[in-house]
Amino acid sequence: MLIVLALDAPESTRTGLLAAAAAAGFEARVADDGRGRPVIGVSGDLHHDLLAMQGIDRVLPKHKPYMLASREHRQDSPSVVMVGAVPIGAGRPVIMAGPCVIEDRSSLIENARLAQAAGADILRGGAFKPRTSPYAFQGLGEDGLRYLAAAREATGMPVVTEVMEPDQVDLVAGYADMLQIGARNMANFPLLRKVGATGKPVLLKRGFSATVEEWLMSAEYILAGGNRDVVLCERGIRGFDPAFRFNLDLNAVPMAKDLSHLPVVVDPSHGTGRRQLVSRMALAGLACGADGLIVEVHPDPDNALCDGAQTITPADLAAIVRKGRAIQAALLDPTTIGAAAD
Amino acid sequence: MLIVLALDAPESTRTGLLAAAAAAGFEARVADDGRGRPVIGVSGDLHHDLLAMQGIDRVLPKHKPYMLASREHRQDSPSVVMVGAVPIGAGRPVIMAGPCVIEDRSSLIENARLAQAAGADILRGGAFKPRTSPYAFQGLGEDGLRYLAAAREATGMPVVTEVMEPDQVDLVAGYADMLQIGARNMANFPLLRKVGATGKPVLLKRGFSATVEEWLMSAEYILAGGNRDVVLCERGIRGFDPAFRFNLDLNAVPMAKDLSHLPVVVDPSHGTGRRQLVSRMALAGLACGADGLIVEVHPDPDNALCDGAQTITPADLAAIVRKGRAIQAALLDPTTIGAAAD
Amino acid sequence: MLIVLALDAPESTRTGLLAAAAAAGFEARVADDGRGRPVIGVSGDLHHDLLAMQGIDRVLPKHKPYMLASREHRQDSPSVVMVGAVPIGAGRPVIMAGPCVIEDRSSLIENARLAQAAGADILRGGAFKPRTSPYAFQGLGEDGLRYLAAAREATGMPVVTEVMEPDQVDLVAGYADMLQIGARNMANFPLLRKVGATGKPVLLKRGFSATVEEWLMSAEYILAGGNRDVVLCERGIRGFDPAFRFNLDLNAVPMAKDLSHLPVVVDPSHGTGRRQLVSRMALAGLACGADGLIVEVHPDPDNALCDGAQTITPADLAAIVRKGRAIQAALLDPTTIGAAAD
Amino acid sequence: MLIVLALDAPESTRTGLLAAAAAAGFEARVADDGRGRPVIGVSGDLHHDLLAMQGIDRVLPKHKPYMLASREHRQDSPSVVMVGAVPIGAGRPVIMAGPCVIEDRSSLIENARLAQAAGADILRGGAFKPRTSPYAFQGLGEDGLRYLAAAREATGMPVVTEVMEPDQVDLVAGYADMLQIGARNMANFPLLRKVGATGKPVLLKRGFSATVEEWLMSAEYILAGGNRDVVLCERGIRGFDPAFRFNLDLNAVPMAKDLSHLPVVVDPSHGTGRRQLVSRMALAGLACGADGLIVEVHPDPDNALCDGAQTITPADLAAIVRKGRAIQAALLDPTTIGAAAD
Repeated sequence: MLIVLALDAPESTRTGLLAAAAAAGFEARVADDGRGRPVIGVSGDLHHDLLAMQGIDRVLPKHKPYMLASREHRQDSPSVVMVGAVPIGAGRPVIMAGPCVIEDRSSLIENARLAQAAGADILRGGAFKPRTSPYAFQGLGEDGLRYLAAAREATGMPVVTEVMEPDQVDLVAGYADMLQIGARNMANFPLLRKVGATGKPVLLKRGFSATVEEWLMSAEYILAGGNRDVVLCERGIRGFDPAFRFNLDLNAVPMAKDLSHLPVVVDPSHGTGRRQLVSRMALAGLACGADGLIVEVHPDPDNALCDGAQTITPADLAAIVRKGRAIQAALLDPTTIGAAAD
Repeated sequence: MLIVLALDAPESTRTGLLAAAAAAGFEARVADDGRGRPVIGVSGDLHHDLLAMQGIDRVLPKHKPYMLASREHRQDSPSVVMVGAVPIGAGRPVIMAGPCVIEDRSSLIENARLAQAAGADILRGGAFKPRTSPYAFQGLGEDGLRYLAAAREATGMPVVTEVMEPDQVDLVAGYADMLQIGARNMANFPLLRKVGATGKPVLLKRGFSATVEEWLMSAEYILAGGNRDVVLCERGIRGFDPAFRFNLDLNAVPMAKDLSHLPVVVDPSHGTGRRQLVSRMALAGLACGADGLIVEVHPDPDNALCDGAQTITPADLAAIVRKGRAIQAALLDPTTIGAAAD
Repeated sequence: MLIVLALDAPESTRTGLLAAAAAAGFEARVADDGRGRPVIGVSGDLHHDLLAMQGIDRVLPKHKPYMLASREHRQDSPSVVMVGAVPIGAGRPVIMAGPCVIEDRSSLIENARLAQAAGADILRGGAFKPRTSPYAFQGLGEDGLRYLAAAREATGMPVVTEVMEPDQVDLVAGYADMLQIGARNMANFPLLRKVGATGKPVLLKRGFSATVEEWLMSAEYILAGGNRDVVLCERGIRGFDPAFRFNLDLNAVPMAKDLSHLPVVVDPSHGTGRRQLVSRMALAGLACGADGLIVEVHPDPDNALCDGAQTITPADLAAIVRKGRAIQAALLDPTTIGAAAD
Repeated sequence: MLIVLALDAPESTRTGLLAAAAAAGFEARVADDGRGRPVIGVSGDLHHDLLAMQGIDRVLPKHKPYMLASREHRQDSPSVVMVGAVPIGAGRPVIMAGPCVIEDRSSLIENARLAQAAGADILRGGAFKPRTSPYAFQGLGEDGLRYLAAAREATGMPVVTEVMEPDQVDLVAGYADMLQIGARNMANFPLLRKVGATGKPVLLKRGFSATVEEWLMSAEYILAGGNRDVVLCERGIRGFDPAFRFNLDLNAVPMAKDLSHLPVVVDPSHGTGRRQLVSRMALAGLACGADGLIVEVHPDPDNALCDGAQTITPADLAAIVRKGRAIQAALLDPTTIGAAAD
């Protein structure tokens, strides 16, 4: 159940509710509702006598297993997550772009500058790469992190990069502005707990056969650790048609936004696995309400070290950004405001 | 293989190629390339000596099993399909809307007027309904067709309705402007042959576990019968997340448009099965390049006889049309022209 | 709801219940429960006053939408379906075998003799073939049916073959002992109605993305037409791993047998699409309770006209039959009787 | 490429090949072929001059990306993995059984004794449990491991339990005879590397949307670390039918055994999620060639702390063991030996 306190609720109410929850054997978490009021989430039902304490504004019987991630928890006030100075979820679509894997210092900085010129807000790039084969290149590791920091220095863009295991979290958090949890690790609960204990924003990719509810439960692990800055990322699900590497599941975007207050971005690069589809699916993602995109960009995709088949050029990215901003304007134009997309 | 003839190719070349194909035991079909030139598709490789005949402009070794439906067959010239006076595939998104099932004469006409006022171009409505249960209402049958004709009379909108078996085709074609093949019948080959032999445009829904190639092969059945007016319709695939009735697979839209010259529309109503998702997925469909939408609309969705859970109101439709037109303009705006969405 | 009458129930009770159902606007069907007692299935709830009529033995509130196909409808008495003199569902696994497509008269008779020598009970062979491509060989048609009849004459085995459209049903039923509905036609409701109106047993393949409930609803269409002789056939579902053409879904076998009284057989040829897997998956099908197998067999699989990649030799079939009979004995051996497989 | 050395190959050949591989920038691993001969796997093609060294018995151009896991690597000699004194892959099906989660010391010992009396060879039980919800019981941790060791002491059965993160591996390996990698961690590459560096056998569950090739690539991570004792476990994939929690994919069993030398066991408890299906799918798993089963057993499944819906009783297990042994005998009986299941 969710208990919303009034702004002037006495401290005794708060501590009383937490104590009652503990006495009943329930988990309890305090967060705020996005409008400054404390919300106490309790993993069970407290007796109604307790709910008569002074300063309780509203009681919402909990229907969803992800109480902190649920829309109700913030009373329909969407979260805005700051990555450096870039707000995600504040209306303007955010563009994260960069190479699949960091190749070397100078090419990363060049790539970052090109991506920024094309409209990117945040630089992405892999230093630690999960690879299906133990014999494939696994990334530059800490050197890659250093190059990321150098590219941030050079461009001013904050950087996001993947972290693959609990023991890496502190290292990666020492360099990155945002920690990415890859699709294969969406249900790596020890890793989720660990990033939940850092102060860094987290980009949580959806597992490629995870339900939307399972995705939100994984977000709940991070939120329950005290880290409120989670951004969801749809990146394609497994399907039956071998013509697609993955099926970007845009249905999950409006669904996740209806169920949760967390921002949602879309990865049309991994989500389709095919360069020819990236631009159109990116625009579709923005049209159905995504708060941003994460895209693999390389000046010379055919010679990228990794994932070239799904990587686009900075020029392609610039076109996406231009059209994406126009779509956003179309959705917001007062003459077009209505039930759709709201 | 595909053989494109010159505009002034002698008749002897055409008949010679057809005879040679027949002699070799291959199927051969003649169509035109969208620019007036005849294209002969042959289901095998003719000897290169034959390909030296006078008036042969180009020879394309066939890579795809759907030669008539392939993009190459029309040399990258997209098809435009006329439904009554409404062109599908000509740039402006076409809106097909109406009730899931025709309930009675007056409510259909009222629904048609409301849909038209909201921006619909074509009226949809089911007279013969495929129902999972033999005990469920199966539609009004020919009475429904009569009411459709009356609604066309009242509004001027052409009408599209489903045909379920070969013996119904002539009856339905006697009333409808466009014949719909439902998802469950995408691989009902006798039915495809039969609609291929009519002069009516066909709306071919994708089976909910069909690959894009299988979908195009089903279109090929219709085209091979001599009917060139096929519009593809993506309507959702089976997925693993029980939160969705179906997963609207927008990836299939740009993919089908890249592989084929046929127009593609999107059905966000069946494709999601949930009213709350319809508007946003409709806009996403247009943003990734669909040529139109087919939407279930009812003045009072909660009291619709069928599929109320995925049906929207005329006011919702009007908002989709407004925003959809703005998205289309955004995609076409010269200042936003680029690689994306092309 | 299901109403079981006593053996000596007066005729007035039966007619009274049917009249009451009709008055209430419900569908009603009479069948028997496998032990001679009439069961009336009603597609709604009759008033409890009516249920006090004389001769009503038991009333089962209906939980499933497929009342005639449900296990409850026959009070847990499994159906046995006779195909010629061969009982399916009577304990001994039934083997249906033969070529994918009938090639010519003499090779069919040879194939039938080899299959019979290997242990087959029923001959299968396609005369009308659903093909993804309009240009592929579509079967010999009525000639194929004649050859089937000749092979029956030569071997004494009953024959099963596919029927693809309502207008073909009478023709095919004139030759075949059992009508096969292919996976692509599982939801071809006009075809189901038509085979429901014949007196021939029906082999109903599961659609490759149909749920078990949808499969039973399709069986209900046939049963509701008055045809009680339906055998279900699991033949593989669509999956995400391109290493498999289809995924034989054996889970559906015990599930369908728990939910329904109808016999269930397994098609490991289409279900896997790979010859190397056929034998082992056939045995697994029998081990989880299937009432039989349908297998593609050819003396020279690599030169079969169709589906050679999933076709086995008569010698392979003989090994399956030998091991399958041993597995059946193992499951039935009194020293091994227990909770498993019951 | 795989290079098989003769038994009497000089050491200089071995070191020469490794040096040549290193010089060429390839990974190289030495293992044996199951018959005592060294096999060198090289992640690229060595120049044919090098392959003329003395003592090279055979060279196999590598076709599969999982060289150590491939069947060819051991020249078709299947691996036998010892867990304590229990051989897996040696012909006799191995039964792993026990509770989903360890509840307390005495109930675990009781459960172990009941499972052993029913025919179990190895005790399973969760001490660290991956749970979708951060608020759900996560297992007893090290206390659970101690109880497992006590149950081994009491029964003599070796024990298998899950390890969820690299930092837990040493702790768990200190108690367990076999380390389980759960389905959610199949692509947790840091964890795979870590268990690859221990001397303990590993039970590698297939991810619920992993292809068979991806599964074998994950095994390759462990093998490449020097740990040869990997057992594969099929535990159900995601499907579209909400009637099933997961779809046990038995097709993967013969496929994995054809592609790899590693033993394969089946988990019908998680694989179906429904108690009623466990016994029949367990027997089907053995019939298609699995080397064993892992089953959730509890004396009182309805009151188990976890997964009761898929847990069976010791009596059910005893019936599975009896019938499973009979099936195995049926498959091996000389009068039933043939192509099937070989």
